[in-house]
Amino acid sequence: MLMTEVIRAKRDRESLPPHVIRQVIREYTDGTIPDYQMSALLMAVYLNGLDKTELTAWAGAMLHSGEVLDLSSIPGAKVDKHSTGGVGDKISIPLAPLVAVCGVRVPMISGRGLGHTGGTLDKLESIPGFRTDLSIPQFVGGVARVGACLIGQTDSLAPADRKLYALRDVTSTVASIPLIAASIMSKKLAEGVSGLVLDVKVGSGAFMKTLDDARELARTLVAIGEGNGVKTEALLTDMNQPIGRAVGNALEVRESIEVLRGEGPRDTTALVEALGGAMLRMGGQAADQEEGEARIRAAIASGDGLDRFRWMVEFQGGDPWVVDEPDRLPAAFHTKDLIFNEDGFVRAVDTEKIGMAGVLLGGGRRKKEDQIDPAVGMEIRVRIGDAIRRGDVSATIHYNDSDRLAAAEAMLAEAWTVGPEPPEQGPLVIDRIAGAGSPG
Amino acid sequence: MLMTEVIRAKRDRESLPPHVIRQVIREYTDGTIPDYQMSALLMAVYLNGLDKTELTAWAGAMLHSGEVLDLSSIPGAKVDKHSTGGVGDKISIPLAPLVAVCGVRVPMISGRGLGHTGGTLDKLESIPGFRTDLSIPQFVGGVARVGACLIGQTDSLAPADRKLYALRDVTSTVASIPLIAASIMSKKLAEGVSGLVLDVKVGSGAFMKTLDDARELARTLVAIGEGNGVKTEALLTDMNQPIGRAVGNALEVRESIEVLRGEGPRDTTALVEALGGAMLRMGGQAADQEEGEARIRAAIASGDGLDRFRWMVEFQGGDPWVVDEPDRLPAAFHTKDLIFNEDGFVRAVDTEKIGMAGVLLGGGRRKKEDQIDPAVGMEIRVRIGDAIRRGDVSATIHYNDSDRLAAAEAMLAEAWTVGPEPPEQGPLVIDRIAGAGSPG
Repeated sequence: MLMTEVIRAKRDRESLPPHVIRQVIREYTDGTIPDYQMSALLMAVYLNGLDKTELTAWAGAMLHSGEVLDLSSIPGAKVDKHSTGGVGDKISIPLAPLVAVCGVRVPMISGRGLGHTGGTLDKLESIPGFRTDLSIPQFVGGVARVGACLIGQTDSLAPADRKLYALRDVTSTVASIPLIAASIMSKKLAEGVSGLVLDVKVGSGAFMKTLDDARELARTLVAIGEGNGVKTEALLTDMNQPIGRAVGNALEVRESIEVLRGEGPRDTTALVEALGGAMLRMGGQAADQEEGEARIRAAIASGDGLDRFRWMVEFQGGDPWVVDEPDRLPAAFHTKDLIFNEDGFVRAVDTEKIGMAGVLLGGGRRKKEDQIDPAVGMEIRVRIGDAIRRGDVSATIHYNDSDRLAAAEAMLAEAWTVGPEPPEQGPLVIDRIAGAGSPG
Repeated sequence: MLMTEVIRAKRDRESLPPHVIRQVIREYTDGTIPDYQMSALLMAVYLNGLDKTELTAWAGAMLHSGEVLDLSSIPGAKVDKHSTGGVGDKISIPLAPLVAVCGVRVPMISGRGLGHTGGTLDKLESIPGFRTDLSIPQFVGGVARVGACLIGQTDSLAPADRKLYALRDVTSTVASIPLIAASIMSKKLAEGVSGLVLDVKVGSGAFMKTLDDARELARTLVAIGEGNGVKTEALLTDMNQPIGRAVGNALEVRESIEVLRGEGPRDTTALVEALGGAMLRMGGQAADQEEGEARIRAAIASGDGLDRFRWMVEFQGGDPWVVDEPDRLPAAFHTKDLIFNEDGFVRAVDTEKIGMAGVLLGGGRRKKEDQIDPAVGMEIRVRIGDAIRRGDVSATIHYNDSDRLAAAEAMLAEAWTVGPEPPEQGPLVIDRIAGAGSPG
């Protein structure tokens, strides 16, 4: 195989055979193929795309560039959930213990926040003592014993993805649906799961701003999963406003505990039910979506989900008392209420601005090296469609630094659009995209 | 300027401002921009193109990446001719002295043969003693005294082109009309000429196989020249069969001498007249094309062109007696006639196969490092439209090695297409494309 011929073929919109793609990924990972050839190929892929067969091979080759976890010693279904990223997206935290309670194990390898979206690892680490850097054997042990475990990326899984991502980052080839999808799926499939539920976000706070793009990403993700032998289903969900009330690491853990107590915001709870229901269906613990959602609700009502979360926190070195006394979580020194200056209805929210305000407060990262402050964040007090009056509170800011407060306030100044009429509103779960191999 | 933003802009089909292009070329040449970013940009340029303003800036930046010759000490017009490459294209050899005789100086920096097309330097070096590695001062002296001088590329001219070409070669970004055009023009404009006539070849022996591609290349070349302040005109000429009779280095010098003696093949002579006429017009030594061509014919008839060529050979260290006794040129030990096996008319010639047969005989290079044999080659005995009979000679092969002969014969086996009817034939000069600043 000549790499120049591979680049030429993709440049000329030809389809690359799977064995060629596998060799390219292998030889790029081991350094045989230099960066300057790979970046030309990446740009050709960016502009000319990859078809379904190519995508399956590309993601599969990245997946097999490193260790693939073997969870076969653990009985039963192992199903993970992955979100493409949103604002206030704490769903994994209540979801994992609830699904585990219902008999489907959840091995979850997650990421950190970057840009306007938060990361589950950062949120969980706001629990004093909570460790996400468990070894692979410890992780497998957690999945086997507790039923759910949540750790960060390790160097041994999908090393091709790290090397390729670094190159894409400096060659403007990040925002490509096939490359994004292959990157996501290579990491998730390396977890050794039997099923995967994807939460593909669409709207002002998501990476995919349009339904068409989100649907294409969802289809691409599902095709890669199914092509690599893993049952995969994607939910397209609304990200035109933050999920629930809390945006910020410790604040989101607090809201997660509220969900587990049956006291969570309606939309957060509804998303947990929808995604959890799909995971139970996929794991063979529910005959249909309805039964799956009912089982999740029952696990909330019984308190079993809360108990399982307490165990999960304890297993991962965190302070289990947090679950019963959320005031043990880090809290900001100050709060400030932002108020509306007009009467009307909340018509729209610039969700990305809310996410960026959280970063400006110190709760997220602009660069990978940035340190985060777990205590800061916002409680969002209104939702789209709410009637508001001049003087009503839009958000309560939790802050530790007045300069950072000022920056966040400036960012939030025009985050809410108010008008005289309530807007039309769409559903929270917009669509479901299942592969041929997924249970309906 | 962030290189990632430059790549993104071209990826998204935006136009890059000239100052950005200049910075990119400068920083790539000095090593600030790494190969892996440049190759992503090159692929984006390959797939999304460059507009006229971008092209002018790109070629101009490459031109100014090194020395630009200052020929202002030499009075009068300085006009060069460049061919995009064909088979049997020895035109520069008789052209340069003829144009010089008519009062327009010809500073010609030329290339070596690679692939199926020959190079003027290789042809001239078949003259015993002829040197093409003159220093820049010697070259300028030759242009001033003899009126025409022909040397090879030097490291000091357009270094960006060498570095970019090497990267394009390994990233499958060679066959891009804007990048080809910028590469050609950066080198030619660095000669410090006031005018440039381009011979853009189209047909089975040319890089451009279709008239549309050739026309686009011609327009692009002219736009770059005019955009950089040099009068530029392109002739689109037929390359569906070799030019003249001779293909091979010493054989082509011999045919060049025949042209200068007024005994050359009709098409070779016609091309010399057409291109020379345009150069004289451009250099202000002819009022129109007709007068220009008449002056070239007169310089042939008077023998002045032959005398000037003798001087040129002598100035560049070659054996001037070759001009009067072409048998002093290297000759192959053996010849073999290829014959037709049928009656009919020559309908088509696979000119690229003839070029490759010349390479297989040892007269050209497959890799840059290959040594060439100046003596070998072919005399093509028929032209498209000729009536032929079984047993007629299609070509006489001049060879030194029977294995190489066998390889060339195999390549030539199906080079000629014979049919019962003569084909329709187009003109030798298909079209002229002039810039706004060129004299009509």
